[in-house]
Amino acid sequence: MTTLVFLDPAFEDGRPADAAEPQLLATDLGVTRGDGVFESLLAVGGRPRKLPAHLARLAGSAAALQIEAPPNAAWERAIATALARQVQADGDGPAVVRLFLTRGPEGTGTPTAWVSAAPVPAATLAQREHGVKVLLLDRGYDSLDAPQQPWLLLGAKTLSYAVNMAAIRHAKANGADDVIFTSSDGRVLEGATSTVLLAMEQDGVRTLLTPELESGILAGTTQAAVFDAAGKAGWALGYGPLEPSHLLEADAVWLASSIRLLAPVTHIDGEPIRTSQRLTSELSALVEDIL
Amino acid sequence: MTTLVFLDPAFEDGRPADAAEPQLLATDLGVTRGDGVFESLLAVGGRPRKLPAHLARLAGSAAALQIEAPPNAAWERAIATALARQVQADGDGPAVVRLFLTRGPEGTGTPTAWVSAAPVPAATLAQREHGVKVLLLDRGYDSLDAPQQPWLLLGAKTLSYAVNMAAIRHAKANGADDVIFTSSDGRVLEGATSTVLLAMEQDGVRTLLTPELESGILAGTTQAAVFDAAGKAGWALGYGPLEPSHLLEADAVWLASSIRLLAPVTHIDGEPIRTSQRLTSELSALVEDIL
Repeated sequence: MTTLVFLDPAFEDGRPADAAEPQLLATDLGVTRGDGVFESLLAVGGRPRKLPAHLARLAGSAAALQIEAPPNAAWERAIATALARQVQADGDGPAVVRLFLTRGPEGTGTPTAWVSAAPVPAATLAQREHGVKVLLLDRGYDSLDAPQQPWLLLGAKTLSYAVNMAAIRHAKANGADDVIFTSSDGRVLEGATSTVLLAMEQDGVRTLLTPELESGILAGTTQAAVFDAAGKAGWALGYGPLEPSHLLEADAVWLASSIRLLAPVTHIDGEPIRTSQRLTSELSALVEDIL
Repeated sequence: MTTLVFLDPAFEDGRPADAAEPQLLATDLGVTRGDGVFESLLAVGGRPRKLPAHLARLAGSAAALQIEAPPNAAWERAIATALARQVQADGDGPAVVRLFLTRGPEGTGTPTAWVSAAPVPAATLAQREHGVKVLLLDRGYDSLDAPQQPWLLLGAKTLSYAVNMAAIRHAKANGADDVIFTSSDGRVLEGATSTVLLAMEQDGVRTLLTPELESGILAGTTQAAVFDAAGKAGWALGYGPLEPSHLLEADAVWLASSIRLLAPVTHIDGEPIRTSQRLTSELSALVEDIL
């Protein structure tokens, strides 16, 4: 089941609500305009992972949209309330926690904020094991638009995710599981809901690479944590620009995200690519330890 | 006030609902992913304008997102119910009617559909009279992406409107009222919530121009109706490609949309441009007659 807790000044630890009952006004700009931001994070044993990184990114997204975000402490208490109820209902298996912040009902100027928690779907967990087939899809943007064009909201995780969802549907309709977006000028950007990582091994040096943030992609909290851990474990680290040829030449490619963690990419545009059970195991062990 | 009517198989004429009470599940993909489509249309004297065109565009948007749309008759009855109640509450002044269709609550596969009706805000009506100052903003896309890249949903009117809203905020923060988006390759695209029209008069021939649909813009129902009426009134009609220089050289430029109708553009990037009270009056008279 899904557990809901609304951030509400009248309820210090958040206001629990029934997910099976209507809870949002139909005039909320979150739904009428996709005007809001969100985060998805993993909880294990009732404890959220990488919470400071997710709260920091949420605050950054909210600032990009000029929505006033509740203080971190209010999120933290609401998350704790949601997870306590979620563990009670579903046990302490891995859970997906989502934070939502919308501009609120039209004309009120009061944002709407809530937390949901639910068990991680089995199909999501399976992608860690079985990997994903991806299509390369043009995202339509050049890779260098973001800094000069704040209205494009390129680095913000907004509720306006219809294109991301359409891209995944397009992939599934074409025999794949997910996508890697490319820019109009041929750079590797990101997955529909994930960050792209790739590994190269040469002369005993293992290098972990990811596209550069300046291309307008979302800063991945999992990518950042993996880089931090891998750096300490002796990996060399690098940032793009990357092109599709780099994906094809890599020793392994993954989609990194908070819930799925590291999903090995097994095929690109229908063709198998190199994978490495050894590198996946090593990095996954690092990821499992991220708190 | 806002009147709400949900499309609901159990209610032939739609199910009226209180806009001041929560009506949507917090798990509706319309809000959690901006995954849905909408239309905004004008009603005058309790009667919707251009309804067939709006229903056709809604069906096209829904098809692009692969959401099953309710039959037109169900929309028509719900709109009639909403407008009857809206006139009762607020009188028969101009009203904005919005149609919403989302993918529905996660995991249900059942779309959510509703109609809202409310008086047109005075500030919107004022823009017909006083015109709008616009900024030219890069939309980030090249102008020829749309046909090959259906996952970009470029011709669909989706709920993922955060960028459109951010662009308007950016305009207002910089002394303007609205924007005209341009493509990365320098073409004129569209307004944030409107279609661009421009007029040229030469040797007694009046020509009305608008950007070509192939650039990935939304097909404007008001633009189409104005073109139809203007053609019958002896205007020559033309479609882009248009560049910003065309806007600066035109005898008049308007933003055309269903609620605001024709808003004369008075300034571009802070500089006054040519306007024509005569041409605005002539075209506005045609627009007023559109049913």
